[in-house]
Amino acid sequence: MIETLRVPGGDGGAVLLREGQCVRVIDVAGGQVGDLFAFAAADPGEYASASHTRVAIAKLFPGPGDVVLTNRRRPILFVIEDTSPGRHDMLYAACDPTRYQSLGAPASHSSCVGNLEEALRSKGVHLTTVPQPLNIFMEVRPRADGTLVSAPASSQPGDYIAFQASQDCLIVLSSCPMDIVPISTGGITPLELQVYEPATAP
Amino acid sequence: MIETLRVPGGDGGAVLLREGQCVRVIDVAGGQVGDLFAFAAADPGEYASASHTRVAIAKLFPGPGDVVLTNRRRPILFVIEDTSPGRHDMLYAACDPTRYQSLGAPASHSSCVGNLEEALRSKGVHLTTVPQPLNIFMEVRPRADGTLVSAPASSQPGDYIAFQASQDCLIVLSSCPMDIVPISTGGITPLELQVYEPATAP
Repeated sequence: MIETLRVPGGDGGAVLLREGQCVRVIDVAGGQVGDLFAFAAADPGEYASASHTRVAIAKLFPGPGDVVLTNRRRPILFVIEDTSPGRHDMLYAACDPTRYQSLGAPASHSSCVGNLEEALRSKGVHLTTVPQPLNIFMEVRPRADGTLVSAPASSQPGDYIAFQASQDCLIVLSSCPMDIVPISTGGITPLELQVYEPATAP
Repeated sequence: MIETLRVPGGDGGAVLLREGQCVRVIDVAGGQVGDLFAFAAADPGEYASASHTRVAIAKLFPGPGDVVLTNRRRPILFVIEDTSPGRHDMLYAACDPTRYQSLGAPASHSSCVGNLEEALRSKGVHLTTVPQPLNIFMEVRPRADGTLVSAPASSQPGDYIAFQASQDCLIVLSSCPMDIVPISTGGITPLELQVYEPATAP
């Protein structure tokens, strides 16, 4: 194992992933949504992009074997393994202070955008654009008429999804602090990032 | 009518829309996809955002009565009318030189991102982020398993969708020059923007 980072419930964290290295996003207690962002290490103006990834994979939601493209259409991650029920939303923006205000919470409520900004600041990176995250373990599904339904995360304790990096990148993960709309199950709980070389999978 | 702008097939154009004013996006010959972008007039760092709009409307694709939110979750447009079959993709990124290269076309092929950049330059606006467009008349639909299927545009000559501005904004429209993947029907043809006051609908 190269690095293990425990991300406290409702908080954020970042790890550097070198090309070829892998990372597991582990739902420690189960039912916890995590907002994942990936930035090119060489230039944080290049980042994992949901809309470019959809063109490449022609799917609403990624799964094992699928590539995640940047806004410059370069591969940044590949999904290599998934032990969860496979619900990882790629439709919804990250929560931010404005979202919480619209739900009646104080603007000081923790948010995934706040966690992202803080995690990047701790790595000396200045954020210019907030990318759309990959919402790990978050269940959003369209009905046949195109309306979207979300449901509490059904991931179990220890479930994980794993990615391999196609280029050096900074991975930011926020344990989503959303406690008003029921997207997580059983409270807001920690997530874990495990960085490893593929030959030494944990 | 305040302003009419004919956007040549495969080309782009921009109009300023004042708060309360309306714009029709007209498919002149039918079957033509148009990439629509909207930027806050006061700050082009605020723009229509697909991922924030989806959270607000809980739909894959917008229709009459739906709001379009910016990346700061402020209303920028409302859909007020739609005479087309109602297929307006909000999942796929705009085409760009890299996309054409990946399809075997020269990098000099016209693209919606190129058209966007040129249209903004003509208005003295410097683009920092390429937002995900609203792909007017473009048909992309998910199957039950989440895979996405696109089909040639089924809009008829004269079909239009109309928006009302919730704030002063710059509307950029690109008649999508994509002639490799069959998303438009019957060649790449012009679109038209008609700006009007609601009391004087054309």
